[in-house]
Amino acid sequence: MRWTEGFIAADWGTTNRRAYRIDASGECCDEFEDDKGVLSVPAGGFPAAVAEIRERLGDLPLLLAGMIGSNKGWQDAGYVPAPADVHDLVAALVWPGGREAIVPGVSYQGNGRADVMRGEEVQLLGAVAAGDVPRDALVCHPGTHNKWTRVAGGCIASFRTVMTGEIFNLLKGHSILADLLKGGAEEEAAFASGVRHGLAYDDLPSELFAVRARVLLGEAKAEDAASYTSGLLIGADVRIGLNGEDAQPVYVMGRPELTRLYAAALRKAGREPIELDGEQSFLAGIREVAKRMP
Amino acid sequence: MRWTEGFIAADWGTTNRRAYRIDASGECCDEFEDDKGVLSVPAGGFPAAVAEIRERLGDLPLLLAGMIGSNKGWQDAGYVPAPADVHDLVAALVWPGGREAIVPGVSYQGNGRADVMRGEEVQLLGAVAAGDVPRDALVCHPGTHNKWTRVAGGCIASFRTVMTGEIFNLLKGHSILADLLKGGAEEEAAFASGVRHGLAYDDLPSELFAVRARVLLGEAKAEDAASYTSGLLIGADVRIGLNGEDAQPVYVMGRPELTRLYAAALRKAGREPIELDGEQSFLAGIREVAKRMP
Repeated sequence: MRWTEGFIAADWGTTNRRAYRIDASGECCDEFEDDKGVLSVPAGGFPAAVAEIRERLGDLPLLLAGMIGSNKGWQDAGYVPAPADVHDLVAALVWPGGREAIVPGVSYQGNGRADVMRGEEVQLLGAVAAGDVPRDALVCHPGTHNKWTRVAGGCIASFRTVMTGEIFNLLKGHSILADLLKGGAEEEAAFASGVRHGLAYDDLPSELFAVRARVLLGEAKAEDAASYTSGLLIGADVRIGLNGEDAQPVYVMGRPELTRLYAAALRKAGREPIELDGEQSFLAGIREVAKRMP
Repeated sequence: MRWTEGFIAADWGTTNRRAYRIDASGECCDEFEDDKGVLSVPAGGFPAAVAEIRERLGDLPLLLAGMIGSNKGWQDAGYVPAPADVHDLVAALVWPGGREAIVPGVSYQGNGRADVMRGEEVQLLGAVAAGDVPRDALVCHPGTHNKWTRVAGGCIASFRTVMTGEIFNLLKGHSILADLLKGGAEEEAAFASGVRHGLAYDDLPSELFAVRARVLLGEAKAEDAASYTSGLLIGADVRIGLNGEDAQPVYVMGRPELTRLYAAALRKAGREPIELDGEQSFLAGIREVAKRMP
């Protein structure tokens, strides 16, 4: 451990940030969350935004992960290519200052595909280090951009992003379905029906329009549209993520309100889901990075 | 023919309208297009918007089709259920006044599916009446919401909407791909590559994210992203529309700049496309409706 006095870890995303004070023994002893995501920081404003974290949690070294390391963040930390483990992340840390390090993202190129992640890698490898995810496993990581990650030999071996959360938000905010999607997505039978369709059929851009047609023709209730659409998108996501994967169980990591929905869809696909809290995994992962810093 | 002095036909959509003066012999002798679509007309403003058409084209009876007959239009003209032909449209005309009629839409319910169209039915049945589309055919009708219609015995037998145009616009306007999609969608090789992927794979919400990842990783040029994405969406659309259909040729009706792209994708799917101008088909269809009015 380079930082024997402890350090501050931050998961600094696009729209918000969460910071934790980690003491010398590795325990989290203070934390806060606010909406000062990367996009809210003006040009040249990162040193001040970083100073503010220290004002709240103490004058300690800082270890940052997430979109803070993107080309819209403080400094572009690039991507380490998969397969990648904690050692690879540590070796590619970027240092905007002597007491501030940024964790790189991970890229995948293979099988004619290309993909990137930034932020999820700390949670994934943290869960492996904590023993919550085995060294060979399939992990689903819901969010704006869901990631399906194949963990092999304790490394992030390959992964695939499905932009389910973003598509739902686009439809809700700006599409012909916007009025219908204003309601909550909490109706269980409608959600399950959407999941079944998404798992069974590959006609997503058509079935989305049918959501509206069924309401117009009196076949479905307007108040069930958001639940059905959420289920439809998550069902399609699970179909894509499980393609060619016979993993059992499937680990689902992230915010509990999202992992719950993906766990329900995975059960309908005949898989046993194991839900994990992404925040605990982040803390486990960032401790592993700090421990191995040169 | 009820209106022996001729009439005005209007294709009145969501964002614009196109009106034609049809003389006693059935010829189009004057026309205009403007942006006074249904959504631009204030509450109670339709009589004035209609009067304006007459000021420009003459004091004639009016036959209206398109979103003017939706619940956001002048008067809801409902839907006639498929299978439907011109006689069904005529029988269900709605009359906001003694000299103004609105053509209903068409609905389809069957095989666990539900769908609606409004406006396309006049073009489709017009093309059949004009002999441009056989009485048994598969017709692709690109637009904000592409319609794949099975014509059987001269009727609209069934159809399926794919919201390709709207999804492209959502991605371009509001998504993480917005910056990348600012450019034109005119690069032929990138478009063809997107079509190939969309035809072959059913991973649309994943491949959309890969568009960005490939640019970040230097595998693709940012300026090709719009063409690739357009091809990807249209390829997936064609895959969905051709599912279970062995039709040859496939008729593609609409605006030439869109039918051209779908014709290219259909050729890559091994189908022979025949492109038709939607405006001529509309005029043929609206004449058929007028001819049969009681």
